[in-house]
Amino acid sequence: MPFRLRGVIPPLVTPFRADGSLDLAAFEANLEAYAGSDLGGYLVLGSNGEAGSLEEDEKRVLVRVARAAAGARPLLVGTGRESTRATVAFTRQAGDAGADAALVLTPHYYKAQMTADALIRHFEAVADASPIPVLLYSVPQFTGLPFPPGVAATLSQHPNVGGMKESSGDVGLLARIRAVVPERFQLACGSAGVFLPALCLGVPAGVLAVACCAPGPTSALYRAFEAGDLARARRLHEALLPLALAVSALEPELAREIHAAYVRYIGEYCSADPARLKATVPVLAGTDDSGASIVNEVAGEPWVAASSAS
Amino acid sequence: MPFRLRGVIPPLVTPFRADGSLDLAAFEANLEAYAGSDLGGYLVLGSNGEAGSLEEDEKRVLVRVARAAAGARPLLVGTGRESTRATVAFTRQAGDAGADAALVLTPHYYKAQMTADALIRHFEAVADASPIPVLLYSVPQFTGLPFPPGVAATLSQHPNVGGMKESSGDVGLLARIRAVVPERFQLACGSAGVFLPALCLGVPAGVLAVACCAPGPTSALYRAFEAGDLARARRLHEALLPLALAVSALEPELAREIHAAYVRYIGEYCSADPARLKATVPVLAGTDDSGASIVNEVAGEPWVAASSAS
Amino acid sequence: MPFRLRGVIPPLVTPFRADGSLDLAAFEANLEAYAGSDLGGYLVLGSNGEAGSLEEDEKRVLVRVARAAAGARPLLVGTGRESTRATVAFTRQAGDAGADAALVLTPHYYKAQMTADALIRHFEAVADASPIPVLLYSVPQFTGLPFPPGVAATLSQHPNVGGMKESSGDVGLLARIRAVVPERFQLACGSAGVFLPALCLGVPAGVLAVACCAPGPTSALYRAFEAGDLARARRLHEALLPLALAVSALEPELAREIHAAYVRYIGEYCSADPARLKATVPVLAGTDDSGASIVNEVAGEPWVAASSAS
Amino acid sequence: MPFRLRGVIPPLVTPFRADGSLDLAAFEANLEAYAGSDLGGYLVLGSNGEAGSLEEDEKRVLVRVARAAAGARPLLVGTGRESTRATVAFTRQAGDAGADAALVLTPHYYKAQMTADALIRHFEAVADASPIPVLLYSVPQFTGLPFPPGVAATLSQHPNVGGMKESSGDVGLLARIRAVVPERFQLACGSAGVFLPALCLGVPAGVLAVACCAPGPTSALYRAFEAGDLARARRLHEALLPLALAVSALEPELAREIHAAYVRYIGEYCSADPARLKATVPVLAGTDDSGASIVNEVAGEPWVAASSAS
Repeated sequence: MPFRLRGVIPPLVTPFRADGSLDLAAFEANLEAYAGSDLGGYLVLGSNGEAGSLEEDEKRVLVRVARAAAGARPLLVGTGRESTRATVAFTRQAGDAGADAALVLTPHYYKAQMTADALIRHFEAVADASPIPVLLYSVPQFTGLPFPPGVAATLSQHPNVGGMKESSGDVGLLARIRAVVPERFQLACGSAGVFLPALCLGVPAGVLAVACCAPGPTSALYRAFEAGDLARARRLHEALLPLALAVSALEPELAREIHAAYVRYIGEYCSADPARLKATVPVLAGTDDSGASIVNEVAGEPWVAASSAS
Repeated sequence: MPFRLRGVIPPLVTPFRADGSLDLAAFEANLEAYAGSDLGGYLVLGSNGEAGSLEEDEKRVLVRVARAAAGARPLLVGTGRESTRATVAFTRQAGDAGADAALVLTPHYYKAQMTADALIRHFEAVADASPIPVLLYSVPQFTGLPFPPGVAATLSQHPNVGGMKESSGDVGLLARIRAVVPERFQLACGSAGVFLPALCLGVPAGVLAVACCAPGPTSALYRAFEAGDLARARRLHEALLPLALAVSALEPELAREIHAAYVRYIGEYCSADPARLKATVPVLAGTDDSGASIVNEVAGEPWVAASSAS
Repeated sequence: MPFRLRGVIPPLVTPFRADGSLDLAAFEANLEAYAGSDLGGYLVLGSNGEAGSLEEDEKRVLVRVARAAAGARPLLVGTGRESTRATVAFTRQAGDAGADAALVLTPHYYKAQMTADALIRHFEAVADASPIPVLLYSVPQFTGLPFPPGVAATLSQHPNVGGMKESSGDVGLLARIRAVVPERFQLACGSAGVFLPALCLGVPAGVLAVACCAPGPTSALYRAFEAGDLARARRLHEALLPLALAVSALEPELAREIHAAYVRYIGEYCSADPARLKATVPVLAGTDDSGASIVNEVAGEPWVAASSAS
Repeated sequence: MPFRLRGVIPPLVTPFRADGSLDLAAFEANLEAYAGSDLGGYLVLGSNGEAGSLEEDEKRVLVRVARAAAGARPLLVGTGRESTRATVAFTRQAGDAGADAALVLTPHYYKAQMTADALIRHFEAVADASPIPVLLYSVPQFTGLPFPPGVAATLSQHPNVGGMKESSGDVGLLARIRAVVPERFQLACGSAGVFLPALCLGVPAGVLAVACCAPGPTSALYRAFEAGDLARARRLHEALLPLALAVSALEPELAREIHAAYVRYIGEYCSADPARLKATVPVLAGTDDSGASIVNEVAGEPWVAASSAS
């Protein structure tokens, strides 16, 4: 059965202990908490998981643990590096470890050299060598590189390029890409603020940080839209918006307020490693008066209320 | 009856003769061609009308002619200038000439000085002095200034600020603005590539350059969405997308192709004034095989087939 | 005698009264204060003079007054508009009013349309029609448009294009332009923070906002460099740097401190017109302990200590 | 004797074979060719060396080989990673391997999180743990992060932070940094197009890609300036400019022309690894008629004419 990119997929956070080391118990507790939610799979080693700050052995153990916990759910693994050779090597490892698809970030350090031609050669080399389907991953707020629709059009002809996660938040770009790729090329929206608009355009999946905190309501939004209830989908979109902004830090002031009120998702810098966050297990209380209750009311189901594992 | 911002509104182009002077006959012919379409009003002196390149007397005559031709339809007039005093003066003139609302561009030359506070003081001074409702106008691709949602929130409290045209194409921003303004503050989407996504979010109007070329299909998209037929709205969105990209020059190569095929909307530089375009009356043939026919099929009505007046 | 762009040229501020109207007495007092300084001319209606916020009649009176006060000193007038036709018309007026050269800002509102070809056609049309030499004016922090060296190379072949004011602060760009234009094409640096580096590269003039506050020391820097005393030039550069940052608002915090200490150059918004600044006559006390005294010590002459006219 | 950052330092390229593997023989041949030039040291594992695309074992062998070949010359090693812990670990390894200083790139993937405070905590943690002096490394064209002068000011107080390589090409920024750091904090310019302007401001070193191709003339520029011969320094600056633009790919068209004429420095993508360049040993013929001969004439010495080792 071919890989299907559908519904809501949380890009798993990587929890660290105060000394900067991996907190695997917290990572597993998160996965256990998500097991009961209506999710389309998991992404491990994405931007939200601080993949760029992890050591090789840390990456391997996270993939292994995620695979074991995911069960029958699709598991996506972020495998992109700056060099083609390193990307190929790690993509193969991910495939061997049971990943269902590899999410491959655009190389981006030498921005001027990353022409359409160079990007195409890189992704084709990875897709040629990969034992599992490759998904393109564009996230310009981190890479500083816009993704040209023509590159997606060319790569969508490769039999082992299965789709793309587009995280710019530019829904118009998503539409322009959709217009030039075949039906079998599967698109996912990577920006919660435009998940509903993307669904309206026919994009069938969201890999969304907000789903780490609020898997239930995010999934409820998706299901409402699928059921043709646009009004309910819109109310859930509005109820989730502050939280979505908070977790993506688009509105830092708002993020601080929301953080203080009912979510501890946005980590603090580890004392031992300023570049790593103490991203603890998401805690969503069902009793707050600002956002979760509205969501609960609309969603008709309580938010996941995991207890902190940090 | 208060001003209502609803449906599809074309931002009228300003046709010039080859010597760079106004072509009023072509301007009137355009308005005549639009009269039979299902439109929510007109905008004169917007960015699409090259307002910044017009002389004072040219602006006055365009407002007068548009008012006469608009009949009962709402007429919006672009009145923003760099200085508050000039904006106030021209907004008053527009009101006296029968405009229903003034679309006020953000001042933007001194970008670093255009703080939230400075923008608020500017718009409040204009709204205080204006005899007609003021609509905020944000178009960062031209001004180089992003529009902070908080500025919209503050200004939406002013009784004479009636709404906003947001043309960045950033639907997430539109959603963030919508979340912080009252119901009476009317939003319009100014970017055709995201009109359908904006409608999905509850934004009820579009001031769209593509509607200058294809008023019928653009309006059909709006009506399909209003009628709950999302599938039909999406097909129209897809059929209109190449044309929308062409008129906004987001994809210049594509624009050239489409231009050659069935539209002469995108003008050429006037020989006598390189800064002015010979934007002729839109010509949409019903017989081409690339885009219009698909639209026709979906829309169930022929495109407006105006004859060229240039 | 052909127009010579040499030495330090202040881009004159336009003082306003509290009600937002022109303060011509303050404007004349500024010019009187500058008369005794070692300056290479004046620029009226530049960005620093808030040209974009001025009415036509205000512009005309400022040119007339500046011409009368300038005496034998070269007078540059900013004449650029968005449309070629309006730029031509005002450039002719400036020539008739006695300007020695016209400083023509790049049109910039329709950024995507401002291709190299469009810019060349615009500037050539203006240069063809202008009775006085045309100077190109690039200031990307306001226009949002970088200036391609190739455009300068092409335009430098036109007999009536005399040179260029480059204000991006990118000295490398200045060097790349210098490498592709003939000797007769005169360059001026428009960013005080890089005036000394530009002099080192062979650029012989500076049109610098800091010279409005500190004409003496800015000129002393220029003379020290010309005399081969790089060490003294560097000390003056360092002494002037905080003031240069303050007037260009590159470091707003610093600007506020310096402002409070010894300069009232950075105006406050006029109560009657938030878009206009009450740019008062520069007041540079000789007794402060932060910057002027160092400059005085190095320069061996007191700063201009004009009294406020506002 | 403390580490001294002075003169011209080439950021060594990493040569690859056609199959994408390290070409150590070519790397050693380069170092041998540089041995006779008047250089202030070497940098290994910089951006120019494609450090981000290298494996751990490849990095280690390059440091070892460079240390052996450098002799008494200072050896800088690029050690920055995204995570603090990985940066600390590799900085210690570099110190153990005989590096004289560590050049630490700003972490940059999570741009919004890289606040002044986060950057300061990262660099302080590295400097605390490093056995060798730490040099800050800012290169916004690759990282997408501007470097705030205040961060340099704070870090310059740390006893083990010895200086900074600033590669933005913004000489004004270099001046603003210089104004807020103590004398012992050593600055290097990382952009050849502004090396002479930076020298004029008192910056005493350049870590410049152009020095990989033309160590002799680049050093001659430095010596001419030090000797007070600004005219000769300027002529060398002008003669080197096309080559400097070519190697930094700022002007790709120009780069191709120059490349064809007399330098094979700009590699082609390896067939086996599109992300790695076949950066061959620089070959600078003395017989071309476009640039090298002028440089030779000015410099009074032939360019290094190494033979290709690829």
